[in-house]
Amino acid sequence: MVFRVTVNSAWRATRTLWLLVLVSLSVCICVCRASSTQEDSAMENIVTEKKAEESHRQDSADLLIFIMLLTLTILTIWLFKHRRFRFLHETGLAMIYGVLVGVVLRYGIHVPRDISNATLSCPVNASPATLLINVSGKFYEYTLKGEINANEVDDVQDNEMLRKVTFDPEVFFNILLPPIIFHAGYSLKRRHFFRNMGSILAYAFLGTVISCFVIGLLMYGCVMLMKQVGQLDGDFFFTDCLFFGAIVSATDPVTVLAIFNELQVDVDLYALLFGESVLNDAVAVVLSSSIVAYQPQGDNSHTFEVMAMLKSFGMFLGVFSGSFALGVATGVFTFTKLRDFPLLETALFFLMSWSTFLLAEACGFTGVVAVLFCGITQAHYTFNNLSPDSQDRTKQLFELLNFLAENFIFSYMGLTLFTFQNHVFNPMFIVGAFVAVFLGRAANIYPLSFLLNLGRRNKIRSNFQHMMMFAGLRGAMTFALSIRDTATYARQMMFSTTLLVVFFTVWICGGGTTQMLSCQRIRVGVDSDQDNSRRSTKHESAWLFRIWYNFDHNYLKPILTHSGPPLTATLPPCCGPLARILTSPQAYENECQLKDDDSDLILTDGDINLTYGDITVSTDASGAHTSSGPAFAGGATSDDLDRELTYGDHELVMRGTRLVLPMDDSEPPFTDPHHRLHLP
Amino acid sequence: MVFRVTVNSAWRATRTLWLLVLVSLSVCICVCRASSTQEDSAMENIVTEKKAEESHRQDSADLLIFIMLLTLTILTIWLFKHRRFRFLHETGLAMIYGVLVGVVLRYGIHVPRDISNATLSCPVNASPATLLINVSGKFYEYTLKGEINANEVDDVQDNEMLRKVTFDPEVFFNILLPPIIFHAGYSLKRRHFFRNMGSILAYAFLGTVISCFVIGLLMYGCVMLMKQVGQLDGDFFFTDCLFFGAIVSATDPVTVLAIFNELQVDVDLYALLFGESVLNDAVAVVLSSSIVAYQPQGDNSHTFEVMAMLKSFGMFLGVFSGSFALGVATGVFTFTKLRDFPLLETALFFLMSWSTFLLAEACGFTGVVAVLFCGITQAHYTFNNLSPDSQDRTKQLFELLNFLAENFIFSYMGLTLFTFQNHVFNPMFIVGAFVAVFLGRAANIYPLSFLLNLGRRNKIRSNFQHMMMFAGLRGAMTFALSIRDTATYARQMMFSTTLLVVFFTVWICGGGTTQMLSCQRIRVGVDSDQDNSRRSTKHESAWLFRIWYNFDHNYLKPILTHSGPPLTATLPPCCGPLARILTSPQAYENECQLKDDDSDLILTDGDINLTYGDITVSTDASGAHTSSGPAFAGGATSDDLDRELTYGDHELVMRGTRLVLPMDDSEPPFTDPHHRLHLP
Repeated sequence: MVFRVTVNSAWRATRTLWLLVLVSLSVCICVCRASSTQEDSAMENIVTEKKAEESHRQDSADLLIFIMLLTLTILTIWLFKHRRFRFLHETGLAMIYGVLVGVVLRYGIHVPRDISNATLSCPVNASPATLLINVSGKFYEYTLKGEINANEVDDVQDNEMLRKVTFDPEVFFNILLPPIIFHAGYSLKRRHFFRNMGSILAYAFLGTVISCFVIGLLMYGCVMLMKQVGQLDGDFFFTDCLFFGAIVSATDPVTVLAIFNELQVDVDLYALLFGESVLNDAVAVVLSSSIVAYQPQGDNSHTFEVMAMLKSFGMFLGVFSGSFALGVATGVFTFTKLRDFPLLETALFFLMSWSTFLLAEACGFTGVVAVLFCGITQAHYTFNNLSPDSQDRTKQLFELLNFLAENFIFSYMGLTLFTFQNHVFNPMFIVGAFVAVFLGRAANIYPLSFLLNLGRRNKIRSNFQHMMMFAGLRGAMTFALSIRDTATYARQMMFSTTLLVVFFTVWICGGGTTQMLSCQRIRVGVDSDQDNSRRSTKHESAWLFRIWYNFDHNYLKPILTHSGPPLTATLPPCCGPLARILTSPQAYENECQLKDDDSDLILTDGDINLTYGDITVSTDASGAHTSSGPAFAGGATSDDLDRELTYGDHELVMRGTRLVLPMDDSEPPFTDPHHRLHLP
Repeated sequence: MVFRVTVNSAWRATRTLWLLVLVSLSVCICVCRASSTQEDSAMENIVTEKKAEESHRQDSADLLIFIMLLTLTILTIWLFKHRRFRFLHETGLAMIYGVLVGVVLRYGIHVPRDISNATLSCPVNASPATLLINVSGKFYEYTLKGEINANEVDDVQDNEMLRKVTFDPEVFFNILLPPIIFHAGYSLKRRHFFRNMGSILAYAFLGTVISCFVIGLLMYGCVMLMKQVGQLDGDFFFTDCLFFGAIVSATDPVTVLAIFNELQVDVDLYALLFGESVLNDAVAVVLSSSIVAYQPQGDNSHTFEVMAMLKSFGMFLGVFSGSFALGVATGVFTFTKLRDFPLLETALFFLMSWSTFLLAEACGFTGVVAVLFCGITQAHYTFNNLSPDSQDRTKQLFELLNFLAENFIFSYMGLTLFTFQNHVFNPMFIVGAFVAVFLGRAANIYPLSFLLNLGRRNKIRSNFQHMMMFAGLRGAMTFALSIRDTATYARQMMFSTTLLVVFFTVWICGGGTTQMLSCQRIRVGVDSDQDNSRRSTKHESAWLFRIWYNFDHNYLKPILTHSGPPLTATLPPCCGPLARILTSPQAYENECQLKDDDSDLILTDGDINLTYGDITVSTDASGAHTSSGPAFAGGATSDDLDRELTYGDHELVMRGTRLVLPMDDSEPPFTDPHHRLHLP
């Protein structure tokens, strides 16, 4: 029966694929037809309205190409998933299809020269944002699109078709990247992330900066060499090299992580890689904008100057912390009580996340970074306040947006290899870049791992280090940063090289993940629960983190969500009135109904209810809050902490049974005498 | 306890509202600051890059205003829903907030004159789509935005701020309208829709055309009068009047329907209103574009000409049927078998719906119409093939998109009352328009209802007619059509008047719905099931529809979904091999497992399983397919038809219990002797 179903679905999939191919063929024909009719109408009567209509039609057809690409990708992914092909991830596939369509667009479709472009040469002394042109009494409004290199003016008029399928680079930054980054923050696996937070921060901050400077220096050497050999046709300054270092330091191992997830690779390795890749995107964005902002004053604008460097450094700190603060603040703000109307709740959640991005951009911070921290904060606090229905809806919504945006970016990457007009492929630079990227990653992982291992109980083993080295794929963020500005010769060369780096890492490194895993003898099929109980040693988490955790659990969560212990229990008694004002009335209600239905669905409730057990019991025993107060204010035991982190993640597996009989099979977690009271 | 919860949530909501107000205030400050910094930087150094950055920042701030507006709307809606205020719907509220923000933007914020605009007066003999400007050796690219009236050239430079918050009108048509229309099609209540299909089609097609011509003629009279009195400052042709008639004929009773849904008003009335409003949007779009296309040849371009009219009429038919065919075709195409991967499935569904729109636009048809029929087709066929998870996901996704787009359009409508630059409010025209809209609606509803009642068993009573007359609200479609082109004097006057019509109908008619219901003594709180069984008379459905239904049920559904009876059972035996090729193998599997889990979730399964029961039984009895074949090919009995339509809608209510014991409480639906075999 199973076999029959497989054959049947495979047959159906093939049929669907063929239908799709037919549709895309007809689309291609439409595109050709549309472009030819455009030509005709342009010849016969140049009416603005008609031209606008034609241009709209053309735009629809162009967008349709991308949609068809995505559709084709989805269908092929499904075939692959169905047959358990693991060596090509959906993003790699999207790139391949993109390349194919790019080739067709570049060489397959001939579009006659569009005669409706014109170059004005009248004396204008500025380039205003809006321009009004007086054509024999009629006024036409034009908006500034950007500067164009003088030597490309002819190209601009030539390849109308290719330019049509070229998106405004800001689309990536302002529309496609935010959902991807937000989703990364929103789906961060919290337990293992927090347990490895120190290491992740080290890799993401220190590591990215190290990698950026190592790559920058190596590339500068390479560029110097090229200048000696005479291979360089334009300016290439040290800041350009550093900028290149910053943008290729953002790793995006989406392919690797998908395989890790599927094969259930060690959770700590997963957390390290995922956490690093999420945070180093943020670091790379701010770092690159700080490098661009480095502008020494005076005549020679490319010498080293301490003041300018300090200013850049200050800008890095300012923008990063500003974006961080803004993201966390809006994440905390989104604090809904619309549980009866999941649609309103989901809409509000979506709008608040989006407005974080816009607010950050409007204030001059970095929207992407703000959105990342907004996502992390919302997963930590807001998620607990949502109704179960909205929890599902928001997760699914951002999962879908992430999926579409990611595949769109990767297929566009493939397309742009052939449709981008100003590629500068310089073999020496490319070889240099590959070496530099490799060495930069190595300079990030190995020294930092060595230093971190000095402080870690649970060492990062050498095979993990090799795997992290190998998994340094480059992806959406690197592409979006490099395509953002391709005005100068240096930037064009960087863009072309970056594209090759992305292709190589996604296809070769991404495709070789399973081989690498078996070669490095990394365990697969690890049951996350078992693995976890094995390692729950007390002093594993950093003391800094533990202090923050206690503060968060005792004060922030009760104030911001309905799920913490009431503040009256955690604050010293002198703050009683304040505590009563700030505590959500629902927290008191929880007191009456410990087995409340929806509290059972809250992410971190496992521990909350447990801890809560402590409070009620000790309150009952001594008749006052104070007896249990210090234990909480001073610091929950490491056991508590460990338990919260343990139960945080598999809330769905254990739903409902947890309170009565926790399913940890290695050791009974209720070693506290207080807890025994709850057991039958 | 209930009271406590309410107070608590109200308090929390108030707090959230205040926070939101604070946030929006700070946003306003940011906007002011951003615009002032823009000024400064523009003065000191005109660098293209910096200007682009500033403009991006400004755009973010502008968009943020809208997001904040939506957020505020959502929070207030929630308060209203919580307190069961019914006289103001979310769309009406969104408009009020829009008006308020529009007033603030217009009169509250003073932005100094932007000096960076410039008018070129050099001799250009065309208005190309792309313009290259040579500013002292550097080339800047400009794109055409549109033509501007000569007398507004000064305005353009003045009100930079107001123009910044003005969206490209095409945004409404290409981004915001499609999800709304698709959602309408996807959520069409099928049972009552099909039962009243004849009447709905009559109201939507005939009625809209009648309304369009009545309004057009009345307005032409009004315009003639205005010309006599000397109140007309520009050209206003008969085609303009007809165009106005077409755009205000699209009804959008979203407010009324929301109340109907909440109060459980008579389902037939609901179906008539909803079906009419969904379809007349499509008719109005195509009608208006046909009227625009009416261009008599020769010198005097505004006389009547038979050929041009026939051409327009042909265009109407062509575009409408083309869009219809395309929508249905893609709806049928989206025919997935990715049930194991809901994310892929949802993504594919979304992409296919979108590509319908784009394909139609690229082919020169009307995307919105194609999307509507695509939605209806997908609800009918594709929905049955989706996994239960994807069924939820797609519903929720389009529900969210619809909600956001709708509220955005309505709040923009409010905003544009003050921020639109070229309002022409002419009292005489406005009064004339209100009278014409009223009479046009009356000329649609009353005569058609009279004619329809001649053929209907279940008459449309006069109170229903009054209610339909009253519920002729104008909304998103009317607005999107009227803002699309505001270049001429006539169009500007139409736009301003349309805005007032929308405001009046949404606020006054929408707000008075409950009063109107009680005034017309229309029953509320009707249980849809009871109501239904009461009326299940045999010959209610039209014969035309019954023929189509049989064809659909016996041939289309088995080919296109997994849920029909196998084709081998419905086709004559001579077509056996063909039938076996076309039938989904899953349909055979259903043969073995009648109580299959997921077939139980399929929309129309109630009847399918019943009908299916027929086949198996008769096949068993006679040993061949032929015995039951004719019964199906010839025509399912009206009872069958009625039963399918009955069970189609409340699949969730009866899930699981239906097959064993149907919940129809008035008469046992299993009067067929075959069915008795299934009962214990």
